[in-house]
Amino acid sequence: MMTEILVKDLFSDRHFAEDEQVVLHGWVKTVRGSKRVGFIELNDGSCLKHAQIVMKSDLENYAEMTKLPLSSTIKVVGTVVYTPDAKQPFEVHAEEVVLEGASDSDYPLQKKKHSYEYLRTMAHLRPRTNTFYAVFKIRSLTAFAVHQYLQENDFTYVNTPIITSSDSEGAGEMFRVTTLDMNNLPKTDDGKVDDSQDFFKKETNLTVSGQLPVEAFALALRNVYTFGPTFRAENSHTARHASEFWMIEPEMAFADLQDVINESESLLKHVVKYLLAHAKDELEFLNNAVDDDLLNRLHQTIDEKFAQITYTQAIEELEKAPVKFDVPVYWGLDLQAEHERYLCEQVYKRPTFLTDYPREIKAFYMRDNDDGKTVAAADLLVPRIGELIGGSQREERQAEMAKKIKDNHLPQEEYQWYLDLRKYGETKHSGYGIGFERLLMYVTGMENIRDVIPYPRTPGNAEF
Amino acid sequence: MMTEILVKDLFSDRHFAEDEQVVLHGWVKTVRGSKRVGFIELNDGSCLKHAQIVMKSDLENYAEMTKLPLSSTIKVVGTVVYTPDAKQPFEVHAEEVVLEGASDSDYPLQKKKHSYEYLRTMAHLRPRTNTFYAVFKIRSLTAFAVHQYLQENDFTYVNTPIITSSDSEGAGEMFRVTTLDMNNLPKTDDGKVDDSQDFFKKETNLTVSGQLPVEAFALALRNVYTFGPTFRAENSHTARHASEFWMIEPEMAFADLQDVINESESLLKHVVKYLLAHAKDELEFLNNAVDDDLLNRLHQTIDEKFAQITYTQAIEELEKAPVKFDVPVYWGLDLQAEHERYLCEQVYKRPTFLTDYPREIKAFYMRDNDDGKTVAAADLLVPRIGELIGGSQREERQAEMAKKIKDNHLPQEEYQWYLDLRKYGETKHSGYGIGFERLLMYVTGMENIRDVIPYPRTPGNAEF
Repeated sequence: MMTEILVKDLFSDRHFAEDEQVVLHGWVKTVRGSKRVGFIELNDGSCLKHAQIVMKSDLENYAEMTKLPLSSTIKVVGTVVYTPDAKQPFEVHAEEVVLEGASDSDYPLQKKKHSYEYLRTMAHLRPRTNTFYAVFKIRSLTAFAVHQYLQENDFTYVNTPIITSSDSEGAGEMFRVTTLDMNNLPKTDDGKVDDSQDFFKKETNLTVSGQLPVEAFALALRNVYTFGPTFRAENSHTARHASEFWMIEPEMAFADLQDVINESESLLKHVVKYLLAHAKDELEFLNNAVDDDLLNRLHQTIDEKFAQITYTQAIEELEKAPVKFDVPVYWGLDLQAEHERYLCEQVYKRPTFLTDYPREIKAFYMRDNDDGKTVAAADLLVPRIGELIGGSQREERQAEMAKKIKDNHLPQEEYQWYLDLRKYGETKHSGYGIGFERLLMYVTGMENIRDVIPYPRTPGNAEF
Repeated sequence: MMTEILVKDLFSDRHFAEDEQVVLHGWVKTVRGSKRVGFIELNDGSCLKHAQIVMKSDLENYAEMTKLPLSSTIKVVGTVVYTPDAKQPFEVHAEEVVLEGASDSDYPLQKKKHSYEYLRTMAHLRPRTNTFYAVFKIRSLTAFAVHQYLQENDFTYVNTPIITSSDSEGAGEMFRVTTLDMNNLPKTDDGKVDDSQDFFKKETNLTVSGQLPVEAFALALRNVYTFGPTFRAENSHTARHASEFWMIEPEMAFADLQDVINESESLLKHVVKYLLAHAKDELEFLNNAVDDDLLNRLHQTIDEKFAQITYTQAIEELEKAPVKFDVPVYWGLDLQAEHERYLCEQVYKRPTFLTDYPREIKAFYMRDNDDGKTVAAADLLVPRIGELIGGSQREERQAEMAKKIKDNHLPQEEYQWYLDLRKYGETKHSGYGIGFERLLMYVTGMENIRDVIPYPRTPGNAEF
């Protein structure tokens, strides 16, 4: 009896009989051998943990197998031996070890710990380390938890376009998309580039947000969301900014600002609960290796109701703070990470919603409050990160939206379709956006956005 | 007792008491009224079906409410009255109807049926039609079914990059991504554009496939997949091609071509079963309105094992076919849709895998078969569409891959990382790609790819 199994099967409830021959395929993580006995830690990608393979010196190829370069691919045939009193509760006693693909001896991920900077230069190999295995497993589980929560709550997933001809609504600098021959550009009579000869017969760019296009779907399918890549062509070199990142943007018809607050808190708590249930090994590993407050923070996130204050109350808190901020505080200030973190880390000690921001520092599409000064916006501030979620009730009144488009000097013709959404039935609606990588930094403890993205893109970096 | 409810609650098992006041918000789909009684069909986005609202002429605003423009937003307060003998099993008897947002009388989606071409000019309004409501609901459910199947089978979701500096491996024309000022391009000494001054310090393009970058993750996390947007800058104007579309690309370590065939069949069947269970109303609607063979085709997809033949057998079938093809058949031909559809529609009458294609017509990364002529590739052909899935066992042997890179004149330095994946442990691995929109055409019956994409991008078209 010979059974092909995975390493994760060994760590499951499944029991293996003494005479049951098992076959494993995987990669050599560590290897050591003495004259009489050798050990290989084998990983096969099925879980973070390794299987302990024990080789006796009577193996035909024993000498070779105890000197295998790390990351070699092998096949092991053996039996499972339970060792309840040892450090690891079982071993696989090898009857046969077959080399399937020898790794080169210059394999760059030898056992010693490497810096994250160094590992970024080998994005194609770093998932073979325990840390990045854990991070990218959590990335996947987090994405699924988001889809699962939203689908179970009747949200329809909408893929808004990546290539867009609309401008960025002030959200940031954009990347141009073109098929024009840069070395032989067609020109108009006045010597400018003739965009009408480009692929889409006009200038097009990479999207900075799916919100406006997804609003059209909320006004037909009620609860909708986008979850896709967005882009910023900004020359930022901080640990929190990337040129390409994913956004989750739910949008709800017949919903107001309080619905945004309740829904986004509920989504975030679902995600954390899902990870605590499905990424136990990975979170424990990261709690030990990366951020020893991680598990504590995640449990706090689900245990307590989030705080909720107005922007105006937040300014009052900041003004009486016994600390000196780099950027001085006044009503109307666009809060910086230092202010946001002070509020949620020092004052409220948990995720904190700020609502009703000054209209001047928020996007044109947010609904005016009756005070004439603020808009129906809500940002969620979380410890270590600062702003994680930004939401608002949208201005649904046709006349007010037309005025906003005019006041913000947006091209009226381009926004006619957005006005149409009001023209054909003004409908209260609201939504929010979550930076997916910010969320990942929160749930992994990683401090640099480059370390939660498989192949990060930042100014000057688009390798692989 | 006043309860805020959704239209879908009315169609659920929930029972409403005679004296239970319900509140609904939604959009007017149809309205008609006589002197004594009026009817509104109300949709609130929660399901495809509408609620029948009955108004009596003693309503204060009866005259106004029976003349509402279509797509107006209203609030209804009333009671549910069961009418087991009538066409619809219940009505909502309105005690109050409040106009929340009047639609303009020039609302373009009046009751008569519009052509899909016309509706494409208003991508922001067409989800308000029954057909596109159904299509985009199915799009969302299909995406989720894919994620669910892969996650339940321990596949890790990997977001491969959209902006890439690698070339397209011959997969097609690419879009350039740039922040250079097109009207003032920096030049090198020889008068060419100085790409080193671009945002990423080199030329970058939009990805045509996530396969190569995701292979690196399969060789660490075993079973992985991408699911994201891909791009082709080709001047195609067919009903099957778009410039921006989504691809699902699973990749499996320690897996061979037969695993690809088994896995992809299993995924496809899961998706169809999920839709039959979760999109019953939408599929029945499309079966009536769009394609009366749809439900039949979906049931066949899950009931029968798919056929499997070699490319060479397929050529033999085609050579003895009693029909004349536009493109003549010979061994070595890159099959066209007419051949593919003949095989799966006329000969095998079900989804059909073709394996072991001539190496000349397939991508460089596929594993050579021992015959020296063919590669370990498998395409799935399905009725109405032709090729839906393309997969292969990858060439895992370092020496063979180095030779393929050279023979295909690929820039060796750029592909060093891809060779590294072999250098540090040759590992058998395989994967496949599904065009998400092709899959949607298969499961909705829509015949034009533009009608399964929220905001389609094709040559000359990037509106909204």
